[in-house]
Amino acid sequence: MARGFFYLTALGLYFNIDKYQILLLPRYGRAIILAMKVSELGEFGLIDLLAKMAHRSRDKQTPAWQQLIIGIGDDAAAWHSDAAAQLATVDSFIQDVHFSLAVTPWEEVGWKALAINLSDIAAMGGVPRYAVVSLALPETTEVGYITILYRGMIELAKQAGVAIVGGDTSSAAQLMINITVLGSTQDEKENILTRSGARAGDKIAVTGYLGAASAGWEILRGKPRIKAKATATLKEAFLHPFPRIAEGQLLLKQGIRTAIDISDGLCSDLGHICRASRLGARIEVDRIPVHPEVRANFSNKALELALSGGEDYELLFTGRAEVVNRIRGLTPCPITIVGEMTLDKRGQVTLVDSRGSPFELSKGGWEHFRETQS
Amino acid sequence: MARGFFYLTALGLYFNIDKYQILLLPRYGRAIILAMKVSELGEFGLIDLLAKMAHRSRDKQTPAWQQLIIGIGDDAAAWHSDAAAQLATVDSFIQDVHFSLAVTPWEEVGWKALAINLSDIAAMGGVPRYAVVSLALPETTEVGYITILYRGMIELAKQAGVAIVGGDTSSAAQLMINITVLGSTQDEKENILTRSGARAGDKIAVTGYLGAASAGWEILRGKPRIKAKATATLKEAFLHPFPRIAEGQLLLKQGIRTAIDISDGLCSDLGHICRASRLGARIEVDRIPVHPEVRANFSNKALELALSGGEDYELLFTGRAEVVNRIRGLTPCPITIVGEMTLDKRGQVTLVDSRGSPFELSKGGWEHFRETQS
Repeated sequence: MARGFFYLTALGLYFNIDKYQILLLPRYGRAIILAMKVSELGEFGLIDLLAKMAHRSRDKQTPAWQQLIIGIGDDAAAWHSDAAAQLATVDSFIQDVHFSLAVTPWEEVGWKALAINLSDIAAMGGVPRYAVVSLALPETTEVGYITILYRGMIELAKQAGVAIVGGDTSSAAQLMINITVLGSTQDEKENILTRSGARAGDKIAVTGYLGAASAGWEILRGKPRIKAKATATLKEAFLHPFPRIAEGQLLLKQGIRTAIDISDGLCSDLGHICRASRLGARIEVDRIPVHPEVRANFSNKALELALSGGEDYELLFTGRAEVVNRIRGLTPCPITIVGEMTLDKRGQVTLVDSRGSPFELSKGGWEHFRETQS
Repeated sequence: MARGFFYLTALGLYFNIDKYQILLLPRYGRAIILAMKVSELGEFGLIDLLAKMAHRSRDKQTPAWQQLIIGIGDDAAAWHSDAAAQLATVDSFIQDVHFSLAVTPWEEVGWKALAINLSDIAAMGGVPRYAVVSLALPETTEVGYITILYRGMIELAKQAGVAIVGGDTSSAAQLMINITVLGSTQDEKENILTRSGARAGDKIAVTGYLGAASAGWEILRGKPRIKAKATATLKEAFLHPFPRIAEGQLLLKQGIRTAIDISDGLCSDLGHICRASRLGARIEVDRIPVHPEVRANFSNKALELALSGGEDYELLFTGRAEVVNRIRGLTPCPITIVGEMTLDKRGQVTLVDSRGSPFELSKGGWEHFRETQS
């Protein structure tokens, strides 16, 4: 007779039956046998496994895959390019720095590691095409978990028309995913959205709603208990941000020249535009499009989450009022004007309330290393 | 009166005078004051510092810099491209996995982190153009050390005509440098050197000499004591490998279609060609171009270092004998035929001695995670 025990984990139902460890994953409709550490499979075995997953995900209808010459498995990846300008961006996603497995399940770690990079290409108005993926991980990591992580990454890659074409794996003390995304401009004009193109008098606008991701993070950490529907919406905003790729391209086509994605929080990211454009920014806090579920459930903390929570991966851009208003009619994505670029207080973001009085925010955006950060 | 103490470190002479810590660096002809941890400078301060260093290194005579549209400081880097095919490769360089600061000084860590990537572009016969650099490091790291590391990287980038155009920084438990190098093909024909193009009967050849880097590593770890001149040569081979970029391009122009760079060791890397080309490989060990100083100083260990030591970053390639012999007359770089691709023992590397008898090697190449590795 089989003997064993089971318990519920963040990923699913864990069974220990005789010598077998089995994890039932209702979300993915499958079970994995936890039987192999990365150390048992070895580096080349792991690379083979991930290469096969990437290869199986190829979609011959997608330009990125059509133009690929060499994918995973050689010294470098190679592809044809007919675009006039190439784009490259890199971001690291590090365990217990950028994410915690106690809050973000493996599949969503993979999704988000790619999403933060696609969001940077979106903020240039570009077309993401290829990704190279570096994985560093403890050798005791279960191979099954890594395949789940990779599946999350591949799922987003498919939806965004991106081909995963290379990478490397190493052992390390903590799980780290480092992704470089290569992209190109939309057409031969080589136009891009930069941080430095803002002009005094430009309106400042954002896509979508703000604060949902950081509210979702608070919920996942088990802090506030709110209604089930709101919980699901806000968790989803944190776990599955979809980069505003189409919107970035639309902004550029309509004549916008300045944008950044909101990763660290509106105030922090707008500060980058201010410094790069050598202007000030004045934000009317009452205009901030706080996510309705955040406004409804986080009362006096809602505005802080929207202004400095980060991880919403919405686009923040500047342009003339008539251009912003024209764009509003061309996309189902909400577009909200929240302030104006100014000649005074260069390099600074100033918050004002509805009466024009200064508004104090307790918390800045996220910055690594700072000992003073909360 | 000033009071203090001093001692000699791997980097230079360390002085502690009153409250000041000063490091004299005779190699770099300067002193740095150890007065600021990364945590005190902050993420954006560190990015600014490194961005300025990269910016100051720009060379307007270099195509990579001439074609750059946006470098460090925006959401992504952007550049013009008139090449028909793009190349991308990534490699991680992780403290206590790929390098130890007890053996490799900071500047050489920076040099090697880039070199291993340029070597992959060399093994494709490509032209390296741009690099994006991810740094993950403990927040207690001295900023001065990071600038030295970055200087080593910039020095190689300059020599190779590569522009550092982006990156990110994060905190982490161990120092990690993750670099993606972007390159292009030499001309519009889109030819590249792959691992899968070998044919039965092709000669197997290598550039340069083998074993020097791993012999240098043994010396740096303090193991063997040999003559000063040999010590300097072998240490240099380990600390400053120069990727065979020009040679890779020459191979391709002369009609070679198959190559890999020797990073893990000749046997291990040739194994990749065997598996990708679905052929066997027969190596005559007496033909191996063991570095003269290794042969002179490492007696019976010399051949093992040359066959499986790794880190030489020479190119291993296959082609018809007459093509290999023609190339030999076109470059000052030594080119040595060491064996032949075979139809039998597919996927395997076989070593034979001068009489054609099987030759046993004790040690394989380097593979991460494997519990069985020595």
